[in-house]
Amino acid sequence: MNTRRNFLKKSIIGAVSATLVDGVYNSVEAQPLGGARAKDEPFKLGIAGYSFVNFNLDQSLEMMKKVDVHYLCIKDFHLPYSSTAEQIATFHAKLKSFDVTGYAVGPIYMKTREEIDKGFDYAKRVGVNLIIGIPNHEDLAYVAEKTKEYDIRYAIHNHGPEDKLYPNASVIYDLIKNLDPRLGICFDMGHNKRDGRDSVADLQKYSKRIFDMHLKNVTAATKDGKTCELGRGVIDIPAYVKMLRKVNYTGSCSLEYEKDMKDPLAGIAESVGYFRGVCDGTR
Amino acid sequence: MNTRRNFLKKSIIGAVSATLVDGVYNSVEAQPLGGARAKDEPFKLGIAGYSFVNFNLDQSLEMMKKVDVHYLCIKDFHLPYSSTAEQIATFHAKLKSFDVTGYAVGPIYMKTREEIDKGFDYAKRVGVNLIIGIPNHEDLAYVAEKTKEYDIRYAIHNHGPEDKLYPNASVIYDLIKNLDPRLGICFDMGHNKRDGRDSVADLQKYSKRIFDMHLKNVTAATKDGKTCELGRGVIDIPAYVKMLRKVNYTGSCSLEYEKDMKDPLAGIAESVGYFRGVCDGTR
Repeated sequence: MNTRRNFLKKSIIGAVSATLVDGVYNSVEAQPLGGARAKDEPFKLGIAGYSFVNFNLDQSLEMMKKVDVHYLCIKDFHLPYSSTAEQIATFHAKLKSFDVTGYAVGPIYMKTREEIDKGFDYAKRVGVNLIIGIPNHEDLAYVAEKTKEYDIRYAIHNHGPEDKLYPNASVIYDLIKNLDPRLGICFDMGHNKRDGRDSVADLQKYSKRIFDMHLKNVTAATKDGKTCELGRGVIDIPAYVKMLRKVNYTGSCSLEYEKDMKDPLAGIAESVGYFRGVCDGTR
Repeated sequence: MNTRRNFLKKSIIGAVSATLVDGVYNSVEAQPLGGARAKDEPFKLGIAGYSFVNFNLDQSLEMMKKVDVHYLCIKDFHLPYSSTAEQIATFHAKLKSFDVTGYAVGPIYMKTREEIDKGFDYAKRVGVNLIIGIPNHEDLAYVAEKTKEYDIRYAIHNHGPEDKLYPNASVIYDLIKNLDPRLGICFDMGHNKRDGRDSVADLQKYSKRIFDMHLKNVTAATKDGKTCELGRGVIDIPAYVKMLRKVNYTGSCSLEYEKDMKDPLAGIAESVGYFRGVCDGTR
């Protein structure tokens, strides 16, 4: 038997052994280890940095490790706008040590063109291709120039009935639909619902321009609605997850948990568990 | 208009108003407030007292409140066997103040007939109609006499491959199937799986005698398997939940969380969230 045939034989034995090893776990109920199924989803589960507004980066990453979440939208209190290249490299190395990817920056309020310039420069230095931002209406054409210039996508965040600029996804969509396709929406499904909108229907309607989202639920479909644990609110999360698949959303569903913000871990964990349970239950 | 017609009119207006109030929450996506749907399930979500082995009663109830769970299987470290009637009343009042019902006692090892006698006496004094216990095989007929005498159900707990008496549900079933029907199983789906069994199939097979269960998942279907967060193990929880409905299980699914037992809240919360997500996702 020549070496190549030996190699092939070993490979085949290896493959069979792997199957048998898997069989220990999978044979009885023929299903993979928990978490493996999440890899079949087009979308990823992440956490919006604002959930950790009261915690430093290490504390935040420890919480993410606890709930086994690997995508973070970066807020400036964890990585200041003035960070040097070295500080940015250190930041990414720290994230990597927790198996976390910082996939975007923001939300960032950009009230002037100078702030827009700074925001794009920051995103480029951080090395992400997505900014979550809040520009003024009159600067949207300028933002569209920047998305072209930098080839960085820009997702505008909707903030509910109190938000004069962007109360819901529909308002954003109408303002950007004829601008550069790299201009889109960070769909805050909770604030959208607080504005009396149907967040499942809007996810479908605006999906082509939804680049990021704040995964959350709220206690009421009115301005008095408050963030709550993902399974305890008025948005039908199973319907939402089915719609995520239907529109083939490939971005991050980033949990923004704004309840118990000084002690959020239990609520974050319950919400993460609920989301994964809904994903597994609707698959 | 007579009084009866006035009453009817008010009732109709009342009913319409209630619908409108609901409409604030339900109109847009036509679904009830989170948690409401759980009331449609035949089964209840509970917590097995052992999950709180390192915590006093107040700490345990605070955790239950946090995750919005209302059924507790009582362990003796929270309510000693020697408790007086007054201590038992105080205990129940404390539970009630957290909207928690102590629905059963145990698991209790009962290695002698005297211990069996004491166990039934304790359950009667605590005022529950279900004991989770571990008697010797030779005492099973005696336990059956006691279940008749007290009209208290007795669920035997299976503890995996290391358990010489009751490694899995099948062993228990074969030993009790011809005894008093108040003798049954506290189905530990995790230890059953660790013994190489199919916990979904066994839930169906032995459902008539399953009075209580330890809701959990494990990392492997072998004796080396360890408890993990409910969504991260080898048992297919969506299939399990569907089977709970199929067999119309009306007891408690009591989470027994045996990981990070000195700091279990995040894991408990994730597991509770996962269970509810699976319930909502499979409905």
